[in-house]
Amino acid sequence: MMDWMLTLGAGGDVGGAPLQVNEITRLLLALAALLGLARLLGEVSRGLGQPAVLGEILAGVLLGPTVFGAMSPGGYEWLFPTDGGSPLRIAEEGFILMSATLLLLVVGLEVDLSTVWRQGRAMLLVAALGTAIPFVAGFSLASVLGDALGTGERAAASPTAFAVFVGLALSITALPVIAKILMDLNLAKSDLGMLVISSAMLNDLVGWIGFAVVLALLPAGVEAASGEGYGVMTTIGATLLFLGLMLTVGRWLLHRLMPYIQANWSWPGGVMAFVFVVALLCAALTEHLGIHSIFGAFVAGVAIGDSYHLRERTRDTISQFVTNIFAPVFFASIGLRINFVDAFDPVIVGIVLSVALTGKVLGCFAGAKLARLTTRESWAVGFGMAAQGAVGIILGNLARQAGLITDELLVAIVIMALGTSLLSGPVMQKVLRTGGKRRLHEMLADRQILLDPKARTLPDLLREMSERASELVPLKSEPIYNAVWARESAMHTALPHGLAVPHARLAGLSKPLLVMARCRDGIDFDSPDGELARHVCLILTPDDQPAAQIELLGMFAEAFNESETRQRCLAAGTATEYRAVLHLATAKPGEELAQHDQAVL
Amino acid sequence: MMDWMLTLGAGGDVGGAPLQVNEITRLLLALAALLGLARLLGEVSRGLGQPAVLGEILAGVLLGPTVFGAMSPGGYEWLFPTDGGSPLRIAEEGFILMSATLLLLVVGLEVDLSTVWRQGRAMLLVAALGTAIPFVAGFSLASVLGDALGTGERAAASPTAFAVFVGLALSITALPVIAKILMDLNLAKSDLGMLVISSAMLNDLVGWIGFAVVLALLPAGVEAASGEGYGVMTTIGATLLFLGLMLTVGRWLLHRLMPYIQANWSWPGGVMAFVFVVALLCAALTEHLGIHSIFGAFVAGVAIGDSYHLRERTRDTISQFVTNIFAPVFFASIGLRINFVDAFDPVIVGIVLSVALTGKVLGCFAGAKLARLTTRESWAVGFGMAAQGAVGIILGNLARQAGLITDELLVAIVIMALGTSLLSGPVMQKVLRTGGKRRLHEMLADRQILLDPKARTLPDLLREMSERASELVPLKSEPIYNAVWARESAMHTALPHGLAVPHARLAGLSKPLLVMARCRDGIDFDSPDGELARHVCLILTPDDQPAAQIELLGMFAEAFNESETRQRCLAAGTATEYRAVLHLATAKPGEELAQHDQAVL
Repeated sequence: MMDWMLTLGAGGDVGGAPLQVNEITRLLLALAALLGLARLLGEVSRGLGQPAVLGEILAGVLLGPTVFGAMSPGGYEWLFPTDGGSPLRIAEEGFILMSATLLLLVVGLEVDLSTVWRQGRAMLLVAALGTAIPFVAGFSLASVLGDALGTGERAAASPTAFAVFVGLALSITALPVIAKILMDLNLAKSDLGMLVISSAMLNDLVGWIGFAVVLALLPAGVEAASGEGYGVMTTIGATLLFLGLMLTVGRWLLHRLMPYIQANWSWPGGVMAFVFVVALLCAALTEHLGIHSIFGAFVAGVAIGDSYHLRERTRDTISQFVTNIFAPVFFASIGLRINFVDAFDPVIVGIVLSVALTGKVLGCFAGAKLARLTTRESWAVGFGMAAQGAVGIILGNLARQAGLITDELLVAIVIMALGTSLLSGPVMQKVLRTGGKRRLHEMLADRQILLDPKARTLPDLLREMSERASELVPLKSEPIYNAVWARESAMHTALPHGLAVPHARLAGLSKPLLVMARCRDGIDFDSPDGELARHVCLILTPDDQPAAQIELLGMFAEAFNESETRQRCLAAGTATEYRAVLHLATAKPGEELAQHDQAVL
Repeated sequence: MMDWMLTLGAGGDVGGAPLQVNEITRLLLALAALLGLARLLGEVSRGLGQPAVLGEILAGVLLGPTVFGAMSPGGYEWLFPTDGGSPLRIAEEGFILMSATLLLLVVGLEVDLSTVWRQGRAMLLVAALGTAIPFVAGFSLASVLGDALGTGERAAASPTAFAVFVGLALSITALPVIAKILMDLNLAKSDLGMLVISSAMLNDLVGWIGFAVVLALLPAGVEAASGEGYGVMTTIGATLLFLGLMLTVGRWLLHRLMPYIQANWSWPGGVMAFVFVVALLCAALTEHLGIHSIFGAFVAGVAIGDSYHLRERTRDTISQFVTNIFAPVFFASIGLRINFVDAFDPVIVGIVLSVALTGKVLGCFAGAKLARLTTRESWAVGFGMAAQGAVGIILGNLARQAGLITDELLVAIVIMALGTSLLSGPVMQKVLRTGGKRRLHEMLADRQILLDPKARTLPDLLREMSERASELVPLKSEPIYNAVWARESAMHTALPHGLAVPHARLAGLSKPLLVMARCRDGIDFDSPDGELARHVCLILTPDDQPAAQIELLGMFAEAFNESETRQRCLAAGTATEYRAVLHLATAKPGEELAQHDQAVL
């Protein structure tokens, strides 16, 4: 009998309650499931050296009809109702919409217009060939195969519309997915990343406008109940006008307003709210024009991010929040509505996937080569642009609603979009050979930390550490100890602040190995400053990697440079806590996004 | 004809679209209006020395039926539909719900349990008397006045339920409003703030449980369609169990999990997402139990915030985002659904407001006095606890839906809740005399900045600055110049790095006045290091404030200590830009929330 009483109250009116207790509970659980699983799999994906977005999309597939929905149809329907009119579904879609919008705002904030213009010719070539070649491939495919590919019930009247749509679906590039992949690879601000993003932006714009044309080609009678219904020409004109105005007058105006806001409003909160309001207004405008809200948010981000008045700290706070909270929800939502088993036709999937991938990669590769990029870079651009992710799915979904395509073709488009998205990151990484910088905490597992060794003397400690090392690599303890002791006897390896770095180069190691010991009582390493060593790091490196020793030694010394880190390491109760301290000591906030200086190209 | 095509696509299924283009556009505009206006008025409110929440609530009143709805009923209905079943309304309420939930999470994160327990006795006294006295007052009032106060159509059968409800409505305290007020006043982490917050927490818990009892007293037949419908005793027991478990086992578990997450997940993003997921799950649980989601989010925040593994940087990023983006939306939403003109009965409003305020303030004052707080502090606690804000409105709204009270009584409760919320901050501020620390940028307006003075010599510059000063205070230019020149001739006021601080004490000034000059070519102040002065600050102080001169001189020197600040000041194109540079140079990120050390008590 209490159930009805707690409908959402704040601002709720006296009339019917928008959301019931039961729906609020499910909404909170649904968001927790999306965010929690997406984040978890995203971290696992990162741990395996893949972009986080891969795990995030997979989380949606697991929560969607393919797995969870198949195992427990009732549970799936309870958490993610399929009825478009159900209040819970509406509220969930609201959050997904906002997540996509804010994600594109952040992508826009990261875009540096001057870099885009600087490579204007390359961008135009990649965008043009990368759109035209897959479009022609898709158009031809649809014209030849027709019904066999999956013409929808209402497309029979207009084979041209169907063919144009397939061309578009195969030529579109997914800005948010690409942006996330580039961020994951620390390429977002590199010249190559800017080329891919700006080409994708142009491609996206052309794609949306092209889709409007497709709908104009369809026979009448598909209009829904609400909306504005501008003509195709009006939409195209207004969109170009908006884009032009925002990047000139709007940009100038925002640049002038920003100092006023920063001078008079609270900081960084006031600026953040201002950025959001501008993004929401632009998103509303483009949505109204029929070009989807995310496009407006992206343009707003570009216009604002270009002002040097926007401080890195503000940008970073927004990025942290959006990429870690909203982006996972959005990417997980992609797999939430599609059953990948039921409507799966291997032939159609194979055809669509191969034509899309070939067309897109070759088109963009050709554009990049023409723009005189190296072959390696051109392949990276090709595979980068190949990710079709969310936007392809959005378009496919709309086309299905319009009766333009069948369920089977929709699923093929979705799998193609996901497949290309999953392929894009790893291939780019491989092609560019960006392993990323080594980081101390990534080289450590709990087994490599000796928290309170039994040893009380230097030789005993080195023996204990050598033994632990021998358990982790295919080497015996004795030769390790001998090599380390030989080096240590020649000259002691103590550093100031109670650090010590015994080390040796060993044949038979395939990669460097660290073993750390935290000695609360201190071990005498005969340090010049007389201090006992409390933080000891045994550094074993392969004898064919001469630079590794110095690099690791520097990393260790830098990590323990701060007295707070040393204190916290001494206080750590478990090896995991010890590693957490090191992670935080070496991680720079926002480094996943903002490593401008480490961009590879 | 394009209108229907762009329904929200990401994850949208093949069935009916949850949100139409038109609705998405309006949703984005509605959020932009709420956030933009709330932020704007919040900043204005801060500028006038009031808590930001005051302006944020006012924004909702302006956007709601009282002003915007009265001026343009069509526009209001278009942006904020009143029909509870409309998709737009549902999506909007979803965001308001999430805003309230996240706000309470942040409030919880700021709670330091050890502080709460330390003043256990004071908290119990304040909570007990602060709940009991206004409850008795409200109960008596309703018993005596009955129908004249506004019994709803279904309450006739149970006058006791009506009386208990009025008692509760008058004794409830609004945790989110109080928390925001305390944050605005930099008191959130002070002992007094903790006392008020922890008492309010207990009060809130008792209030929600009491409301369940009220509904149990009502005749049957009011159950709504959905929900769980536990018995009153089950709800109370389960809630206490949840609270107990979360603050013991849950807290311990989170404390153990945190290092693992920080060691292995990306930082601070991974930790943030983890915190959110825990909060969402707890919110879902309490919502399901019938105690509203915000309570669970609050408890989750308390349990997590207590772990010393949660770094200040993580807490700060979450706080910044939530208090600046979500909180304004929530507070603006309060005024969004009520017409304060139509259902306004001055007599009922007067009675409810005076009884509620008197009962609450006196009850809490008595509790605080009994706990041996000073009289001044006790009044502060009384008025702090008097803010009834959102929670009172939620309860009143639910009671109206249950047919327990009339529209007129609802409006009286809402006005009482808003009135006490508006009163609370200013009165606390007055009683505690917390003016806050002076900050350089808050003492400067554009008129006080001379960007490129004509003067080429020291006397000319001082004359020019004195003239500008004379325009801003009721003093003539000549005596100002004479006093400044006398001081300057005695000994020059140059500082290193091209700074100079001419100054004088003047009778007839009511408060300190600064005039700053940015001289790109430099003025010779005969500096010991030979550098020309490029950043000159004229400091005029009242002759009865001997400490002010040194304080301001120190602030100026500190602000210009960084070479980057001096560079940016030289580059500034307008006085506003110049002030923005100074604001950012002196503002510490998150200072609005995290000024623990400056807490007044």
